[in-house]
Amino acid sequence: MKIKIAELEKLVKSCLVRKYDREDADLISAVILFGELSGKTSHGLVRLNTGGSSVMAQNPSGKPKLIHKSNLSSLINGNGNPGMLVGQLATGEVISIAKKSGFGIVGTKKTNSSSGCLSYYLEKIAKENLIGIIMAQSPASTAPYGGIQPLFGTNPISFGIPANPRPLIFDMATSAISFGALLKAKVVGEQLPKNVAVDKDGNITTDPNKAIEGATLAFDNSYKGSGLAMMVEVLAGLWPGADFAGQNESGGWGNLFIAFSPWLLLNEEEFKEKARKLVETVRNSNTRDGRKVRIPGELTLDIRDKNLKAGEIEVDDRLIEEIMRG
Amino acid sequence: MKIKIAELEKLVKSCLVRKYDREDADLISAVILFGELSGKTSHGLVRLNTGGSSVMAQNPSGKPKLIHKSNLSSLINGNGNPGMLVGQLATGEVISIAKKSGFGIVGTKKTNSSSGCLSYYLEKIAKENLIGIIMAQSPASTAPYGGIQPLFGTNPISFGIPANPRPLIFDMATSAISFGALLKAKVVGEQLPKNVAVDKDGNITTDPNKAIEGATLAFDNSYKGSGLAMMVEVLAGLWPGADFAGQNESGGWGNLFIAFSPWLLLNEEEFKEKARKLVETVRNSNTRDGRKVRIPGELTLDIRDKNLKAGEIEVDDRLIEEIMRG
Repeated sequence: MKIKIAELEKLVKSCLVRKYDREDADLISAVILFGELSGKTSHGLVRLNTGGSSVMAQNPSGKPKLIHKSNLSSLINGNGNPGMLVGQLATGEVISIAKKSGFGIVGTKKTNSSSGCLSYYLEKIAKENLIGIIMAQSPASTAPYGGIQPLFGTNPISFGIPANPRPLIFDMATSAISFGALLKAKVVGEQLPKNVAVDKDGNITTDPNKAIEGATLAFDNSYKGSGLAMMVEVLAGLWPGADFAGQNESGGWGNLFIAFSPWLLLNEEEFKEKARKLVETVRNSNTRDGRKVRIPGELTLDIRDKNLKAGEIEVDDRLIEEIMRG
Repeated sequence: MKIKIAELEKLVKSCLVRKYDREDADLISAVILFGELSGKTSHGLVRLNTGGSSVMAQNPSGKPKLIHKSNLSSLINGNGNPGMLVGQLATGEVISIAKKSGFGIVGTKKTNSSSGCLSYYLEKIAKENLIGIIMAQSPASTAPYGGIQPLFGTNPISFGIPANPRPLIFDMATSAISFGALLKAKVVGEQLPKNVAVDKDGNITTDPNKAIEGATLAFDNSYKGSGLAMMVEVLAGLWPGADFAGQNESGGWGNLFIAFSPWLLLNEEEFKEKARKLVETVRNSNTRDGRKVRIPGELTLDIRDKNLKAGEIEVDDRLIEEIMRG
C-alpha cells in the first residue's frame, strides 16, 4: 500500500512508545525511517518488530549509560537497549566532543540488535562539517580467510565526508552477504550467489540451509576482506569492551564512532570544495559505455530525498499490519 | 650473493649519504632494510636507486617542514624528500602527539616516492602501545568501479594493533596489483593475472603493455574496493593538501598517520591481552585441511626476525652492484 510518510512515522512511533520513552522512540523512529525511505529496506520497517533481534524484542536492563573516559572519548554501555537508540546517542556524543576538541571517539557495548543504516549517522556527522568513520561489530557469522569457522560479524566500515553540496558517504559490509539476506534466502527458498558462503565442512555452497550451519565469507574471498573484518572486530568489538570472535559474549555487539574536524589538517571550506571536485572528477571520468560513474552513497540519499519530496511511500501491507499489531 | 646484514646496511647508508644527511640516511636505510629483510622486496633495496621514483632520484627543494596545526595534529610538507624519510618523521611525530594527548594525526604532502612498507611504521607505533592507522595516496593508476580512467593510487590502508606478545599488523593495497608489479611484468614479459587491469577501452587485459595505457582495478573489482580506494584518496590525498585524482598534482603524494591510545576506551593491558586472545582464536579456528589460519602481517615479521637472527641475507648480485655504483 501507499502510505503518507507522516502517517507511517506516527505508526512507527506509536508502536515504539509501547516500550520506550517518547524521546527514545523519536530517535529510533528516525533511523528506521531512513532505512525504509532510502531503499535499504533490510534496515527499515522490518527491524521494528519482526524477529528476536528487532527493536521491540529488546529487553533493556536500564537506560544506556554514558561514561566519559577522557576529553576526547566516551564509552556507552547500551544496557541491552536497541542499537539504533545507542547509535543515535553515540552520534550526538561524538559530534559534541569533536566540535569542541577537533576529534572525538565513542565506543558502545552491550547492545544486541542492529544499529540500522550507518549512512544515517554519517550524514548527520558530515553535515556538522566533521569527517566520520563508523564501524559495527556483530555476532560471529563470517569465517576468516583460510578458515571455515564463523568468527567475525558482518562488520561494516563506513565513512562520511563533508563535501559541497552534500556529504559523500561510503558504507560497506566486510562480509560477502548479510546474515539477514541469508535468512531471507532460506525463508523464501532461494539459492545464494556463488562464493559468499561455505557449509560446515568448508565447501562453497549456494544452499542457505547449509550456509547457516557453516559460515559466510569476507566480501572479496581473500585475505584483504578478511583482514578488514578482523580489524573491525578489534576496533568496534574488542576495544569498547564488546564481544570479539565469540570470546566475550556478555559484552554484546560493539560499535565505534569517530569524528575528525577537517581543521586538523586543512581549512574546512577548502576541504569541502576539494571533495566536491573529487566527486565531480570521478562521476565524469571515462567509462566503457559513456554512462556516469556511480558515486558511493549517492543512490541512497537520492532515493530518500525523492521519497521525502513525494511525501508518501509504497510499503508491503503485511509489514504495516505487523506494526499495527505491535 | 649472501651478504651480512650489517654489511648491507653499511652499503645502503654509504649510498644514501652521497645525497642525504647522515641522520636522514639512517632513517631511510631502516625502512629499506625492513622491506628487504621482511621479504617485501618490492619495497626493499630496489627502491634505493633504481628508476625515477627511487630514493636517490629525488630532488628535495629543502628539508621536510613540520607545521604544528593543533595540539592533536601536524602537517609535514615533504619538500620533495623521499617518502621513506617523511614517513619516519611523521611516525615519530604522531607517536609523540598521541603519547601526550591520547590521539594524534599527521598528514604529509609533497613527496614523490614510496613511503616503503607501511608495516614498518605500524610496528613502531604499536610497540609504543598505540593503535595505528596509516593510509598512503599515490599517483592515479586505478580506475573507479564502473569507470576505465585511472584516478586513484594503489592507496594502501593499514592497521597496527598493540597485542601480546607482539603487534598485529594488517597492510593492504586497495588496488588489485601494484604499479611496480605491472612495470615488472612488462619488463620481464609476463602476463598479468586475470581481473586486475583494463586496457584503454576498458576491456579486461592480461597484457601489461595494454594495462599501462589503461588502468588497474580495485582489489575486489567491485564498488567496495573502489569506495575504499576513494576514501584513501580523500583522507590521505585531499585532506593533507596532496594530490587527489590528478586534480592537485603540485601537492605530490599524500599520507595520513593516525595513532590512538587504547586508554581512550579500554585499559591498555586488557586491550593487549584481548588482542592476543583474538589472534589465538583466529589462528586455532577450524580449517578445511587442519592447517592453522594465517594471521595478517605475521609472515612479514617472521621472515624479518628469521633473517635478523641469521645475520645474513640472499640478495641479487645485480642489485648490490647497482647500489655500489650509487
